[in-house]
Amino acid sequence: MTEMNKQWILVRRPEGAVKRSDMELRESPVRPLEAGETLVKMLYLAMDPATRGWMAPGGGYTEPLPLGGPVMGVTIGRVVESRNPQMKPGTVVAGVGHWAKYMIAGERQISPVRCGNLGVLSPMDTSHGFDLPMYLHAMGTSGGTGWYGLMEVAGMKAGDKVLVSGAAGSVGSLVTQMARLKGAAKVVGIAGGPAKCAEAVRDYGCDVCIDYKATDDIAAAIAKEFPDGIDVYFDNVGGEILDAAMGNLAKWARIAVCGMISQYNALEAPPGPRNMWNLLVKTARIEGFLVSDYFGTPACEAAYREIGDWIRDGRMVAKVDVRDDFDNVPDVFNQLFSGGNDGRLVVKVPD
Amino acid sequence: MTEMNKQWILVRRPEGAVKRSDMELRESPVRPLEAGETLVKMLYLAMDPATRGWMAPGGGYTEPLPLGGPVMGVTIGRVVESRNPQMKPGTVVAGVGHWAKYMIAGERQISPVRCGNLGVLSPMDTSHGFDLPMYLHAMGTSGGTGWYGLMEVAGMKAGDKVLVSGAAGSVGSLVTQMARLKGAAKVVGIAGGPAKCAEAVRDYGCDVCIDYKATDDIAAAIAKEFPDGIDVYFDNVGGEILDAAMGNLAKWARIAVCGMISQYNALEAPPGPRNMWNLLVKTARIEGFLVSDYFGTPACEAAYREIGDWIRDGRMVAKVDVRDDFDNVPDVFNQLFSGGNDGRLVVKVPD
Repeated sequence: MTEMNKQWILVRRPEGAVKRSDMELRESPVRPLEAGETLVKMLYLAMDPATRGWMAPGGGYTEPLPLGGPVMGVTIGRVVESRNPQMKPGTVVAGVGHWAKYMIAGERQISPVRCGNLGVLSPMDTSHGFDLPMYLHAMGTSGGTGWYGLMEVAGMKAGDKVLVSGAAGSVGSLVTQMARLKGAAKVVGIAGGPAKCAEAVRDYGCDVCIDYKATDDIAAAIAKEFPDGIDVYFDNVGGEILDAAMGNLAKWARIAVCGMISQYNALEAPPGPRNMWNLLVKTARIEGFLVSDYFGTPACEAAYREIGDWIRDGRMVAKVDVRDDFDNVPDVFNQLFSGGNDGRLVVKVPD
Repeated sequence: MTEMNKQWILVRRPEGAVKRSDMELRESPVRPLEAGETLVKMLYLAMDPATRGWMAPGGGYTEPLPLGGPVMGVTIGRVVESRNPQMKPGTVVAGVGHWAKYMIAGERQISPVRCGNLGVLSPMDTSHGFDLPMYLHAMGTSGGTGWYGLMEVAGMKAGDKVLVSGAAGSVGSLVTQMARLKGAAKVVGIAGGPAKCAEAVRDYGCDVCIDYKATDDIAAAIAKEFPDGIDVYFDNVGGEILDAAMGNLAKWARIAVCGMISQYNALEAPPGPRNMWNLLVKTARIEGFLVSDYFGTPACEAAYREIGDWIRDGRMVAKVDVRDDFDNVPDVFNQLFSGGNDGRLVVKVPD
């Protein structure tokens, strides 16, 4: 078969927010497969802040994306042709793939099936029976990230008072609900704007949501909600809000650093938290984590069983915002940072 | 008995370094004991950076020292008179006590014997047979702090590459040796000045010592010693050196925050580390701790058995710098920050 491919190629490393001119949409025929290769038709692309990090010259947690190559992110695709004996046409795969209609995956870009989606494409367990985009959200990296960070990294226990930033975002909206379902004594979200804050309380189980855009003194707002301090802070944003949270810790507090969305587009590293001293005073812990470290573990299987049950029983709300707008991916991507999405932002790749 | 007491009274909260005028040496007769009280003759006062924190208006890990009351620190004393049935004259006690010749301890300021010295005076286990000042150093809070931070908080394992700041200081000089004795693959110290650095290598088991006073780019100096990153950083200083260490972490690095001596005298909180992002990239952990949380635990007993053996066998060097200079305690105290001491700085209280 000779199909035309359309690929988003990284042509320039972004400075600040991603610009349209940092990428080019290129068409070219799909070349024939060589031995060991697999042709994957991409189906869904998750818009993930991590991709912004991968575009940077270095300092991310993977090698930077090469200039002149396709942009990559967490994706779902379907094998359409295979010269890899391990991969059969029709198999649905998930993992780090191209922002493109088609991707040719070499042997090393395909891994055996395992829980979670690692840095390569692997056959996906769709036995829970959800629509495919859900496997990019609660049943995929967002859910796994939230569960792992809250339960394993922060070690949340029933009775803990929990703060979650990015509380209306893809990971945050699941974490607030997990905290509630796991018996948190209080769940406070932080989000930007009245609509997102209302959603965090109405749909995502927050007792209270602090609208940071309408708050002059975020530290005071946090202190008001946590007069005895925060036990667990699930940090999606870094920067000033992390600092404010660090100023309001309870003894033995745990901070799980999931993301630092405030820093992805920053041109230089901002000053760090002034409240480091509090780590000592409160014998507190800050720990960064990457969901990939948890893939393939028994805890991963347990997490998706539990999350799957919560969603099926209607106890967890997991919104997916699917856009049929492949030709405008850079603009869709930037909505992550401007807050234009409602739930996990996913781009459907045209047939 | 009526003895004259001499007490160092806190009369002003210091701004920046402690000044002579922030304290007054007052003489007054020791009042008669009331029921439940114990009269303790103070023998040795450990000069501890923590005391500087306790003098501040708030934000320390204990209530601030009251103005008009005696300055306090970690001390050793001997019971000379008792109206507390639990306490017998002659008993040696250690814990938080007054910078004074005598101290009257109420029932709540005396605790049952337990491993380590808590926030109150408790009878001390002197069965290891060292001179008393050693119980303010390797066999006391310095040793316990180092062991707890390195082994329990940072979870150091054989083969780890370890960085220790304040490497010629009372805690740091013990930590570098513990790391070596526990099988670290590399031990790098940071200290101020060639004499201290030479000492860290000669006496305290460092492979290399970085003299931060002679180094323009501390991050580059650390990077040179740890091309594959730091596994464990035992932080005694905070500030810029913490930031530089955070920029040079290995995957799964652990930072134990023991002290932030760079910040004790700061008039305002300095900017925090710019390298917070690295926590995520390296899935690293920073954790603050207080040695008091570890007192009375089985690990505490084990630590002092091990430390005691190391000292007796000559495998650990534990220097105590005893000064017979009670009338000049504020000046002696400030040497902690200017680096004028050689080993754990202890003031002997006159008879």
